[in-house]
Amino acid sequence: MFKIVSLKNGIANVDGFYCDAVNCGLRPNTQQGDLAYIRSDELCNIAAVYTSNKFCAAPIKHALRYGKLFEGNFVLINAKNANAMTQKRGIEDIEEILSNLPNGLNIKNPVMSSTGVIGYRLPKEKIISGLQKLDFNAKNSDKLANAILTTDSFKKELCFKVKLEDGSSFTIAAVAKGAGMINPAMATMLCFVATDAAVPKEDIQSLLKEAVDESFNKISVDGDTSTNDTVLLMSNGKSGAYDKEAFKIALKRMLFELAMMILKDGEGSNKVVAFEVVGAKSDQEAKIAAVNLSNSLLVKTALFGADPNWGRIASTIGASGIECDEEKLKIYYDDLIIYSSEYPELDSEREEKAYKIMQQDSFKIRCDLGLGDGRYTAYGCDLSYEYVKINAEYRT
Amino acid sequence: MFKIVSLKNGIANVDGFYCDAVNCGLRPNTQQGDLAYIRSDELCNIAAVYTSNKFCAAPIKHALRYGKLFEGNFVLINAKNANAMTQKRGIEDIEEILSNLPNGLNIKNPVMSSTGVIGYRLPKEKIISGLQKLDFNAKNSDKLANAILTTDSFKKELCFKVKLEDGSSFTIAAVAKGAGMINPAMATMLCFVATDAAVPKEDIQSLLKEAVDESFNKISVDGDTSTNDTVLLMSNGKSGAYDKEAFKIALKRMLFELAMMILKDGEGSNKVVAFEVVGAKSDQEAKIAAVNLSNSLLVKTALFGADPNWGRIASTIGASGIECDEEKLKIYYDDLIIYSSEYPELDSEREEKAYKIMQQDSFKIRCDLGLGDGRYTAYGCDLSYEYVKINAEYRT
Repeated sequence: MFKIVSLKNGIANVDGFYCDAVNCGLRPNTQQGDLAYIRSDELCNIAAVYTSNKFCAAPIKHALRYGKLFEGNFVLINAKNANAMTQKRGIEDIEEILSNLPNGLNIKNPVMSSTGVIGYRLPKEKIISGLQKLDFNAKNSDKLANAILTTDSFKKELCFKVKLEDGSSFTIAAVAKGAGMINPAMATMLCFVATDAAVPKEDIQSLLKEAVDESFNKISVDGDTSTNDTVLLMSNGKSGAYDKEAFKIALKRMLFELAMMILKDGEGSNKVVAFEVVGAKSDQEAKIAAVNLSNSLLVKTALFGADPNWGRIASTIGASGIECDEEKLKIYYDDLIIYSSEYPELDSEREEKAYKIMQQDSFKIRCDLGLGDGRYTAYGCDLSYEYVKINAEYRT
Repeated sequence: MFKIVSLKNGIANVDGFYCDAVNCGLRPNTQQGDLAYIRSDELCNIAAVYTSNKFCAAPIKHALRYGKLFEGNFVLINAKNANAMTQKRGIEDIEEILSNLPNGLNIKNPVMSSTGVIGYRLPKEKIISGLQKLDFNAKNSDKLANAILTTDSFKKELCFKVKLEDGSSFTIAAVAKGAGMINPAMATMLCFVATDAAVPKEDIQSLLKEAVDESFNKISVDGDTSTNDTVLLMSNGKSGAYDKEAFKIALKRMLFELAMMILKDGEGSNKVVAFEVVGAKSDQEAKIAAVNLSNSLLVKTALFGADPNWGRIASTIGASGIECDEEKLKIYYDDLIIYSSEYPELDSEREEKAYKIMQQDSFKIRCDLGLGDGRYTAYGCDLSYEYVKINAEYRT
């Protein structure tokens, strides 16, 4: 057995990790940083998960030269400019910036991570002079967490201390910013996880992949996939402690909580809804249905209006192309059955109950296809006027 | 050579076709019909294209017993109730209703077509008594066109007279209602085409399929596919005239014009945008990119805000999974180049020009992937506050 304790602050708590942020002139509000770093004094095993967007941004192309599993100890992060669709020049800019990192820190294989507008080259000079202002021995996780935000309304950082049965312990912390979260060219999801657990090379990538699949890959604000999405897990092993099962659970819990924070912070979003599809022919079919539900405009606007119109749910499942049968389908809002072939018409009593469920901050829509054992849960949010406003008025 | 002339009114103009509509109590506004029919006094070759939604509604299941190509002469249409997700009872209700059609009209293989809310059985008694009020020898195409509307803001009917080189001529007319058009359970697209051309059985279905693929299947208001979408083409041959090429062109033109009317009437939509993707590896890849663009929330809100943020266009193409290369991609708004690897950054002059283009009622976004000969054009509209309002507030 092991025990997980939540701590305040984020990456600052992790032994051997340092972080800081400054404003180097990319962001008009000079009170908020726009250039940040995370580094470890020891070399780390690093695992990465990047966007599936074919137009992945220059920082991802640059980092991929080390592969998705590599040894390194430094990541530089900027906001307000995605360095995407900048071709080879974008990569050359990164090389030049990183060549200006200070000596004496034993930096190895440094990478960069960017979020912001697509299609503009990085303001190199500003960033290079910003490097002079960073304190490379600081533990300013709060500054870091704020500096990487774009359209987010609150910072997202977590830290867990994990105590193992043998008395040893390790710390794991993460910082993230908004995701698929709608603001157009700024819809990037970034997450950096630092741990002093001694995660071996053979485990680190599969652990990260699995945790990302069960968290960030299950949420959708608007169905769009950014050019810059990045999740990095850095393990410096300084605690000497490691237990695969404990680490896996702690990492999954941390990324899932961050994913829910991101969804809650989706622009204009008021509700977080779990779309649980069970009884599908296969997990793959359940996933198709759940993801379609979380992305459907008709479903998302019904959530905003708290309209218990289950016809939109059924129609979306039917349109998704998976096997389904109206005689076998059952739809529940939380524990309330809202459709089955025995209850074909919604009476006013059940409609009223459904309306109340839908007014909650979060609830579950459960669709039992009654055909097999396939299951998947996707998480989505409602679509409000605010979403349209934010996205229509951005830049104009 | 042949000549196509537009006529006023719709199906009323076609020899041997009759239509009428009454209000039988499904729609609160008694000035507007909710029950309509189209019939031919001669037996027709009928071709049908139905929704791909697996939960297709009872009227479609009922009609499919005749196949997608059949002989018949009567369609009964109701608004306000989709008769979807009503299981076998929904089909039995149709059988009972149709058994009440008057004798003496030589009705063969009558079908029904419905649009409205999902999940409620048809009010059979109202419809059956409504049948008594219909004039089965009327040519009230205006009443028909209005009765089938749900959230549409204007009626959609067209009629062409086609004069062939040999001096013969035929008439083709169609009536349609809103599509994928967003109002939730009412998002159905219906279209009925009547012609006195002598379209032979061996041509009629492929002609309809091709015309639908190049019109209704290229438009998207919200990416949702209704349970009730139906296009019927009825040919009674009364003119004795037919020329395959002329008929094909007239039918395609008619359905394309109706599709554009539907898009223009998309709820809350202000703009019709053609997403033309060229230079893709294959037509199929071009189609994936074009359809993704027409459905992207980020793209649709940018259209509403007239924001020339081409990063959203590039990001959507990259996320669609097709082969693409940022060195080869070119993006144009009408004839204005807005991205190529030689023009990486949008200057204020081009941005101003792009903004002007985007303020038009309709314009084209052209993406040249520079990789091959694949091409496809999809048509979409913007996403406004009004869309959210209509869909969030429906029923509540």
